[in-house]
Amino acid sequence: MRDVAIIGIGQTPVGEHWTTSLRHLALDAALNALQDANVERVDGIYVGNMLSGEITGQSHLGALVADFIGMEGVEAVKVEAACASGSAALRMGTMAVASGMNDLALVVGVEKMTDTSGRETTAGLALAADGEYEVSQGVSFVALNALLMRRYMYEYGWKREDFANFVINAHNNGMTNPNAMFHRRITAETYARSSMIATPVGLYDASPVCDGAAAVVVAPVEYARTLSTAPVRIRASGVGTAPVAVHDRKDPLALEAARLSSRRAYEQAGVKPADIDFFEVHDAFTIMSTLGLEASGFAERGKGVQLALDGDITLQGNLPICTMGGLKSRGHPVGATGVYQVVEAVLQLRGLAGPNQVPNARLGMTQNIGGSGATIITHILEAMN
Amino acid sequence: MRDVAIIGIGQTPVGEHWTTSLRHLALDAALNALQDANVERVDGIYVGNMLSGEITGQSHLGALVADFIGMEGVEAVKVEAACASGSAALRMGTMAVASGMNDLALVVGVEKMTDTSGRETTAGLALAADGEYEVSQGVSFVALNALLMRRYMYEYGWKREDFANFVINAHNNGMTNPNAMFHRRITAETYARSSMIATPVGLYDASPVCDGAAAVVVAPVEYARTLSTAPVRIRASGVGTAPVAVHDRKDPLALEAARLSSRRAYEQAGVKPADIDFFEVHDAFTIMSTLGLEASGFAERGKGVQLALDGDITLQGNLPICTMGGLKSRGHPVGATGVYQVVEAVLQLRGLAGPNQVPNARLGMTQNIGGSGATIITHILEAMN
Repeated sequence: MRDVAIIGIGQTPVGEHWTTSLRHLALDAALNALQDANVERVDGIYVGNMLSGEITGQSHLGALVADFIGMEGVEAVKVEAACASGSAALRMGTMAVASGMNDLALVVGVEKMTDTSGRETTAGLALAADGEYEVSQGVSFVALNALLMRRYMYEYGWKREDFANFVINAHNNGMTNPNAMFHRRITAETYARSSMIATPVGLYDASPVCDGAAAVVVAPVEYARTLSTAPVRIRASGVGTAPVAVHDRKDPLALEAARLSSRRAYEQAGVKPADIDFFEVHDAFTIMSTLGLEASGFAERGKGVQLALDGDITLQGNLPICTMGGLKSRGHPVGATGVYQVVEAVLQLRGLAGPNQVPNARLGMTQNIGGSGATIITHILEAMN
Repeated sequence: MRDVAIIGIGQTPVGEHWTTSLRHLALDAALNALQDANVERVDGIYVGNMLSGEITGQSHLGALVADFIGMEGVEAVKVEAACASGSAALRMGTMAVASGMNDLALVVGVEKMTDTSGRETTAGLALAADGEYEVSQGVSFVALNALLMRRYMYEYGWKREDFANFVINAHNNGMTNPNAMFHRRITAETYARSSMIATPVGLYDASPVCDGAAAVVVAPVEYARTLSTAPVRIRASGVGTAPVAVHDRKDPLALEAARLSSRRAYEQAGVKPADIDFFEVHDAFTIMSTLGLEASGFAERGKGVQLALDGDITLQGNLPICTMGGLKSRGHPVGATGVYQVVEAVLQLRGLAGPNQVPNARLGMTQNIGGSGATIITHILEAMN
């Protein structure tokens, strides 16, 4: 198995791109990544996307993207794992290069959630839940997260306002990320006053509906230095799954798929949580930040919220999270999110995160969650320079 | 890179499974394949599917299948390349094992096209075409194939009845395949009298809408013999793409993606078309059989139909195709089809194809087409016993 590195990154600003089509978003991110990698052609394209069939009326994104970015003929496929589609595509691209079946692979995460012509977005997102046992009962994706948050508060005695720092931190970091959807500080007061979507999930507990695309180029480590001045090594990628339906999980607050996925990644990389310099958490909802931190070994059960209360999660803290704004402030174009996380981690590891730079960042971790925790994919990345 | 072999196969009968859900179809095929491989657990699951989000209201099939077949926690992802999704999933599973990231992988192709709760099937299939430049003009998938067939007849002087043998052969072979949807002979007369769907595509030029699932277990060749008494080696897998929109292709009748994909496969395997003992062609429409044969080097441009007229494509011919009934008679549950083709090729290479056995079959080829030729995936398989 060949070791694999990222040699180029690209991203579009996240937002409501009413005048930009799905394929143009993908093009923008892909061309930036190829330019950054200084390559013109790759051997395989792996597109992460969740909702293009339902919302835009377009499947078959592998061939569509290959042609539209000017690589007619090249191998191409789409990968889907609900909101973890982006990092699932990265894992496939990594396998392609690791196996030797591709020398260079382009991974594109793209999602267009606004300007829909088909199924509306809430119904689209619910496709990540169990259609026969959850959605048929009328539960939405927000409602599932509300059930988890309520149970968590009940079990461990936290109040809703204890989650505020996850949001404040994300929005602080998003202020200086030009690609973030929101450039606006949130105070504890604003958070406390936010309107309820599904109690106790308020507007600011949830990430926004938006459009965006991000891309990376991967290559064997052995060539990476000749192609790029600042390659970043993929030290590990781990995937874990759990039952799609929350009620089928033995312990719904355990986020077992995150535990499996992070443990597999730590083992591959030969590192432990304390070695991680920053962590791109999947903060689709504040409850998911908490559960992700706990399941990945950064806090004991029921104590994830304490990391936020203590300020450990800020850029100056012991474990900076959501360093470029996270899903909450940068935005959460679902199938693209996993690739955005990786692009941002590469910026940190190259020392190019500007005002958001985590000092001396050498080892970064990203974690991307599909559904309410049914597919979870963790990557550990390391600076090579 | 490790060489990869298939050590287990499973399939459900293809048909209109009104009382069997998507997940049960997948379960049935997966358990059969695991039992055949004599393994209880794998390291990764790769699900090929095109339409579950749109038609059944269920995405996130990787985790769904992993849990439902009793492998909670295992890595799992869905792969989509329109009607080539099944073989795209096989390619991902092959990469996973070739790279060493998985030791054992399960590949499941599953599709439920009847009993829909969402978008109707014709609109669903059109998602494989270009939404903005083809579907928006009102063209359906059948119509695109009709345009290609009409042009082919015009360019090369063939009549509609010259295509009949593709259908007669498929239905003859399906007669003795217990998993085929149709067990009914078609005569040249029936074909000639069939009602038109989109002239010149008649009812019998097109494959049926149906449900089904097929699965294979893949393992490194080095362990394959210890796990299975009849492993089949994956000698090559090649992927080619072309513009999704037919009007964007320089030469719409050339099926360039098939040429690329088969050429890549021949190169990997170090073989030529004459070495292939049988060919599982993607006969979604009779015109696609013709174009696939030509682009893969079995006939000159404009001469693919001659192979059918001469009887070369029958079980007794020089190049048997659709040996178990093909898409036309076994059926075409779109995202599962590529895996069915491979399961059937394995039966042939194990000498277990019963009355459909191709004598002395050692090297078989499968070709799976996504869209009207935008993604084409070719596998070459070889008997190891």
